[in-house]
Amino acid sequence: MNMREITARMKQDSSNMAAMSLEQRNAALAAVREALLEHKDEIFAANQEDMKAAEEAGVPESVRKRLKFDEHKLADVTAGIEGLIKLADPLGKVQLARELDEGLKLYRISCPIGVIGIIFEARPDALVQISSLCIKSGNCAVLKGGKETARTNKVLFDIIYAAAVKAGAPQGCLVQAEQHNEIDELLECHGNVDLLIPRGSNQFVQYIMNHTKIPVMGHADGICHTYLDEDADLKKAIPVIVDAKTQYTAACNATETLLVNRKAAGEMLPAIANALRENGVKIRGTQEVAEIIECEVMTEEEFKTEYLDLIISIKLVDDVMEAIAHINKYGSHHTDCILTENDETAAKFMQLVDSAGVYQNCSTRFADGFRYGFGAEVGISTSKIHARGPVGLEGLVTYKYKLFGQGHTVGDYAQGRKHFHFRDI
Amino acid sequence: MNMREITARMKQDSSNMAAMSLEQRNAALAAVREALLEHKDEIFAANQEDMKAAEEAGVPESVRKRLKFDEHKLADVTAGIEGLIKLADPLGKVQLARELDEGLKLYRISCPIGVIGIIFEARPDALVQISSLCIKSGNCAVLKGGKETARTNKVLFDIIYAAAVKAGAPQGCLVQAEQHNEIDELLECHGNVDLLIPRGSNQFVQYIMNHTKIPVMGHADGICHTYLDEDADLKKAIPVIVDAKTQYTAACNATETLLVNRKAAGEMLPAIANALRENGVKIRGTQEVAEIIECEVMTEEEFKTEYLDLIISIKLVDDVMEAIAHINKYGSHHTDCILTENDETAAKFMQLVDSAGVYQNCSTRFADGFRYGFGAEVGISTSKIHARGPVGLEGLVTYKYKLFGQGHTVGDYAQGRKHFHFRDI
Repeated sequence: MNMREITARMKQDSSNMAAMSLEQRNAALAAVREALLEHKDEIFAANQEDMKAAEEAGVPESVRKRLKFDEHKLADVTAGIEGLIKLADPLGKVQLARELDEGLKLYRISCPIGVIGIIFEARPDALVQISSLCIKSGNCAVLKGGKETARTNKVLFDIIYAAAVKAGAPQGCLVQAEQHNEIDELLECHGNVDLLIPRGSNQFVQYIMNHTKIPVMGHADGICHTYLDEDADLKKAIPVIVDAKTQYTAACNATETLLVNRKAAGEMLPAIANALRENGVKIRGTQEVAEIIECEVMTEEEFKTEYLDLIISIKLVDDVMEAIAHINKYGSHHTDCILTENDETAAKFMQLVDSAGVYQNCSTRFADGFRYGFGAEVGISTSKIHARGPVGLEGLVTYKYKLFGQGHTVGDYAQGRKHFHFRDI
Repeated sequence: MNMREITARMKQDSSNMAAMSLEQRNAALAAVREALLEHKDEIFAANQEDMKAAEEAGVPESVRKRLKFDEHKLADVTAGIEGLIKLADPLGKVQLARELDEGLKLYRISCPIGVIGIIFEARPDALVQISSLCIKSGNCAVLKGGKETARTNKVLFDIIYAAAVKAGAPQGCLVQAEQHNEIDELLECHGNVDLLIPRGSNQFVQYIMNHTKIPVMGHADGICHTYLDEDADLKKAIPVIVDAKTQYTAACNATETLLVNRKAAGEMLPAIANALRENGVKIRGTQEVAEIIECEVMTEEEFKTEYLDLIISIKLVDDVMEAIAHINKYGSHHTDCILTENDETAAKFMQLVDSAGVYQNCSTRFADGFRYGFGAEVGISTSKIHARGPVGLEGLVTYKYKLFGQGHTVGDYAQGRKHFHFRDI
């Protein structure tokens, strides 16, 4: 079967997947957890083959760390599934209940999106998290993971799929795509697939967005800012800036640009620059910044750069309004932070910066589904439509309107024989 | 200025539009209402020119009715604005409030989408409704109405714009596109425009969806079904079927296909066919239907047809499950109804039919923002992402996450020095 036929079958099964009760979905998750623990030796063996192949292929150690699936990662993902089982049901929530007229009742009820295609990087724990989130939210999913962990992914997927189906999920609940060309096939499956969630490089996500008619949720780049206000507390600010830049530079929520209030620059910038340099960060700045601290001089256009590395851009601004204008122009509407003790200035920043996350006095690195208490995430969305920021269970559901009548016709209302009374129930 | 420059300026202004208080937005709406009443003679004069030109161009009377803007329509739209002023603020709603750890507080707050492009048919009242919905929801909007009411649209727009800006809305709050080629320019404005809402023919909406990178909300076709169950009450069913088919045939929510339970067909179908014929409806059906009532015989593939006319397709099915399978395969996921007194059968239908609206014992024509009590609508969405069904104020907002810390860094949590406690506040 090709991807079009596979997803057509999933589409048919998606109504049955949506109809699974909370008890059935939680039982399926519990079965998945049990099966992972039971088959851990197979998983570890497959992962060791992947790790060996990666080492032989010269994959750098920092990347290889993410490919690993050991006792520690297994404990993490099974704890994640336990947490997910405890979370409230995202389905069947009554979001609106209104009597339009005598005997004519309207309800808006949350329900799954249907069939979701998720393309993610080589991280075996992501496969477990994503498939668990889809089971809990009643969605069918096509999963395509990075090729560097193909062996681990296959073993994990087979275990998860068998356990879910045995616990009552329909045959078409989950499908694994193993070949790279299946990504292009998947992009053609509009009508069958309701949503695509691509994770990966800017270039890859852009490619997906430009080559499909299916709605895409996610983010292409993460150009996050931290703005140091004149009323900042330097003792708080330094560790936050260092964390935002260095705690994990390859992440989309790492800070790329530091904006500094001109009135604070002379006093605060040297100490910040020292702290950044001590943590291995290379500084680039405008001519004006170079007159205060030692740094490489950069141009205005370069503020659109996502470094994903131990490099930071620095620029001075007159006030919070100029910082906001810079962020709305050069940023990627992901996550931006203000460091200030002045709550009025902070309120202005948080109102006017047009980003999924706006922070006061904490690291941009907090933009993450686990850290928000969502259990896990399928991705982070910079789109404003449907879901914004880290996407957990709530971002995986939509709703339908249910209307119950007793033979009601529109003609009676159009011709004034009856009138709506719109009473919330 | 071209559309790219115009929308870039609107994008800059959108933060200020979003920051307008509820009082300011309601005051702007009140000013718009006053101005429309004050300048009614200019509006009516422009509309009479449009009406005369339409008559000379041979536009049929049924269409000309929609172009009209008279005292009656003015009373409708000003009453609509009064209703909108009374509606609760869709902005600034706290959707989530959670303490992640001591002193680290996360809030999810509703906010406008930003800049919306709306392309709608020649109906002057739609221009007033759409611009009012955008003002109430704090969105900037590019409006392009049908050319047949160009003169009325221009006068209405100028009145609304002047009143809104005088009441404190930013310069870039609303823009009217008057030339047809500006639609193609607008489609290229990704990055500046956050959402497009096209209204019109299937072909037109498909064109928009295929020629832009901007998210599109709406629906291309409306193939709505009514399923007559064996447990239907024929006295209720006949007027509902007649209303669903004939009350306004050109609407997307008119029923195009009637599915009839085989066990009920012999007894009920002749009476239904008579009632439909008395209302001028032409019947097409499968061979099996033609053996019970007189009708033109049609093929299976033709069930994908949206007639938008006094024509109906009829097919027999074994049971509710076959009806559901037919609807999910041939329908457009818009609005579908079951006629039955058996609530268990109805529950199955409403759970498994994958449409924005699922109805029991009432006409599919109820799928409409006004009839749902939303005041008005900017369109009806068959997309499952973001908004589904009639789109009122709630479909015009998104949210942002606000995180307040006291110098919190991610490193402390990653290294186990601190632990999240996720306490809802």
